[in-house]
Amino acid sequence: MDTAEFRRRGKEMVDYVADYLENIEKRQVYPDVEPGYLRSLIPEEAPEQPETYEDVVKDIERVVMPGAASPACTELETVMLDWLGKMLNLPEEFLAGTKGKGGGVIQGTASEATLVALLAARCRMVKRILSDDPERPEADIISKLVAYSSDQAHSSVERAGLIGGVRMRKIPSDSKFSVRGEALRKVLEEDKAAGLIPFYFCATLGTTPSCAFDYITEIGPICNTEGIWMHIDAAYAGSAFICPEFRPLLDGVEFADSFNFNPHKWLLVNFDCSTMWVKNRTDIIAAFKMDPLYLKHDHQESGIHTLHTHTHTHTHSICHWQIPLGRRFRSLKIWFVFRMYGLRGLQDHIRKHVALAKEFEALVRVDERFQISAEVVLGLVCFRLKGSNDLNEALLKRINSARRIHLVPCQLSGRFVLRFAVCARTTESRHVQEAWAHITQLATELLRQFPQ
Amino acid sequence: MDTAEFRRRGKEMVDYVADYLENIEKRQVYPDVEPGYLRSLIPEEAPEQPETYEDVVKDIERVVMPGAASPACTELETVMLDWLGKMLNLPEEFLAGTKGKGGGVIQGTASEATLVALLAARCRMVKRILSDDPERPEADIISKLVAYSSDQAHSSVERAGLIGGVRMRKIPSDSKFSVRGEALRKVLEEDKAAGLIPFYFCATLGTTPSCAFDYITEIGPICNTEGIWMHIDAAYAGSAFICPEFRPLLDGVEFADSFNFNPHKWLLVNFDCSTMWVKNRTDIIAAFKMDPLYLKHDHQESGIHTLHTHTHTHTHSICHWQIPLGRRFRSLKIWFVFRMYGLRGLQDHIRKHVALAKEFEALVRVDERFQISAEVVLGLVCFRLKGSNDLNEALLKRINSARRIHLVPCQLSGRFVLRFAVCARTTESRHVQEAWAHITQLATELLRQFPQ
Repeated sequence: MDTAEFRRRGKEMVDYVADYLENIEKRQVYPDVEPGYLRSLIPEEAPEQPETYEDVVKDIERVVMPGAASPACTELETVMLDWLGKMLNLPEEFLAGTKGKGGGVIQGTASEATLVALLAARCRMVKRILSDDPERPEADIISKLVAYSSDQAHSSVERAGLIGGVRMRKIPSDSKFSVRGEALRKVLEEDKAAGLIPFYFCATLGTTPSCAFDYITEIGPICNTEGIWMHIDAAYAGSAFICPEFRPLLDGVEFADSFNFNPHKWLLVNFDCSTMWVKNRTDIIAAFKMDPLYLKHDHQESGIHTLHTHTHTHTHSICHWQIPLGRRFRSLKIWFVFRMYGLRGLQDHIRKHVALAKEFEALVRVDERFQISAEVVLGLVCFRLKGSNDLNEALLKRINSARRIHLVPCQLSGRFVLRFAVCARTTESRHVQEAWAHITQLATELLRQFPQ
Repeated sequence: MDTAEFRRRGKEMVDYVADYLENIEKRQVYPDVEPGYLRSLIPEEAPEQPETYEDVVKDIERVVMPGAASPACTELETVMLDWLGKMLNLPEEFLAGTKGKGGGVIQGTASEATLVALLAARCRMVKRILSDDPERPEADIISKLVAYSSDQAHSSVERAGLIGGVRMRKIPSDSKFSVRGEALRKVLEEDKAAGLIPFYFCATLGTTPSCAFDYITEIGPICNTEGIWMHIDAAYAGSAFICPEFRPLLDGVEFADSFNFNPHKWLLVNFDCSTMWVKNRTDIIAAFKMDPLYLKHDHQESGIHTLHTHTHTHTHSICHWQIPLGRRFRSLKIWFVFRMYGLRGLQDHIRKHVALAKEFEALVRVDERFQISAEVVLGLVCFRLKGSNDLNEALLKRINSARRIHLVPCQLSGRFVLRFAVCARTTESRHVQEAWAHITQLATELLRQFPQ
């Protein structure tokens, strides 16, 4: 959609909202659809090719309005997560379908997904131990639990451990910043020998500092054997897995209990939209479910129609999958974006960004003053001037002070590294070329003043 | 704003967004404002009287755009929470100002605020005990912690205890469904005698079932003496405290450590917007803070400009006050709503809803087949047919099956009770009258078929 069409469609939508508000009294107070009504009204998969805006928007009245906010909000979300799961070629067990035990839910951020998975894992392990040893105090069990992640994992993983009140250990990554099975196994042996109870491993596919990938094909079988919940955090990289050429990076997901990534990062869906799948819904629900009368509804208890009084939506089942109770109708934006772009359009978007990152990488590689600091797999290029950390900090300071581009640094093996990330929907080759020209000019000035 | 103006202004906003996107390359990549720049650009308090839309929207370029997403997003939020805190006449300690130790933050829902407060309380108590007894295992302390709420409290309070891994006890409420100081004191004595460590009390002002109010003027001093964190959940009722005649319901807030309510419920701000204040920011930050390099910024570390690479905003300080790291710019909707309505307009809205609830209550009271089941303080009327629970369940079923209005029930002292809640912005006297005529007609039919 170009800007001219955006102006036109946006204004039509303003009128739709105004019409809705003006005529709201003509609409039914409570939907009379049966649970599950929505799935049969829309296709089972996302379209390959883009649809027109007319096609999409006319489905609002046909598909959403009969189910009002509830159950439409829950049901569209469940079906959209199935669409996206199929786009990623996730194992069948992660899909809800009509009979599956798994399924997906939208969280606000990857931090929440990491926490929700950790809490579900904690609950599952405590229950498992109590079933063998019902007299053991729960506090004693929790005090022995230990969760793991890569030493490259995002800080939110450690924070999840802090919130969940469990100890957390970082597994040393290898020279490519990835965790291997052997490294995990070594720590597990130590911890089990010390009487601890390993219960959770948060694998990262696409780490924040350098976009490194943990070896989940090695780690997954170990976790399965040991009864450890494996959660996969692919917050940034996950979007790329819709392209067949990047899907091998997700191999091993079949060993995971839960998987999460952020379409709001790289799949053209606005913030916030962090999609999470689990193999067993009951694991999640067990960790969160409360059942007061005012959250019951008529398809659960005989004859009592009871949705929550709040003006926002209560999606009965999914509210037990997350920290908040209330939920926004975030699946609408997935539905619109996937249909307006089609799978092909989304793949094109990913491929273009990766090509732009490779273009930048090639520019860095031909300038012998610079070096590439980590393998460029997707849209992130880690690079630095050959030389001291101070020199690179000084370069970063000049770049960011000039305010023409903005870079965020990281530390890799003790080295201060600059990160060039291709993120924006509208980035083109000329932006990459201009950015590199700008960086090299600042580098030249810096090196003239402080010859190495 | 009427619908005609909404159409016009909405379309102008679509153009503003389109212009922004078309011209984004002319804007600065990174703001050059100093932290704290925003506070001096806007008034210290919300306006008494409504402002025009022009006045509000022109401030986007003057106030927000120079600070881009960050720090504008954090700073506007902090100032808006000060505005709202002043509207509620919160004690000075809860305001951030320029030097305060307290301040406010927007959470998604009251459930999150309850959890965040519980985690902060847990952290504070563990630290306090460890400072006296550094050798005591943390797991032993946590296993002895006990949190409290009313037996009328929302299920999310119990869920916060479940997530935080602490035990939770419900304090029996009195005949008006409120917790009194004595009831709390009795349970505290029992628990302390049993070796437990009381650390958190979640008081409710305006319970979900009946809009009852815990006696925080009695409970607060007990909590303060015992070193228990008192959190106040006023999710629904909080909005009413902007009216001087309802402000006495908040008396005792001076004893609280944290306070929360949902402007998205009753203050005309769209979902989600749950506002939370604390007296000591450091209590919250201690429970959540992690400090990776990629979250540092230049005003914290010399010379390194580093905001997170995500396309959404990282508001450096406030991201340590909540579960997710990323944040939306939710304070904009507060800013717009408060200025478009003015304090007077918002007070009028609250007063109108309370008057409509009183109007409904009066209708119920003159029909001798019915009874009022709880004092009507704000916009909620709890009522029932004199008679059995089965009879009232049958009435509710007929009401909700007719789909002209929708009611959510509750249990009060073992009785099945219907709840009439005035919620919608556009509710008028005629809706209340029509609803009552409808209810009484269905009741008449029911009683004819099943004479009592």
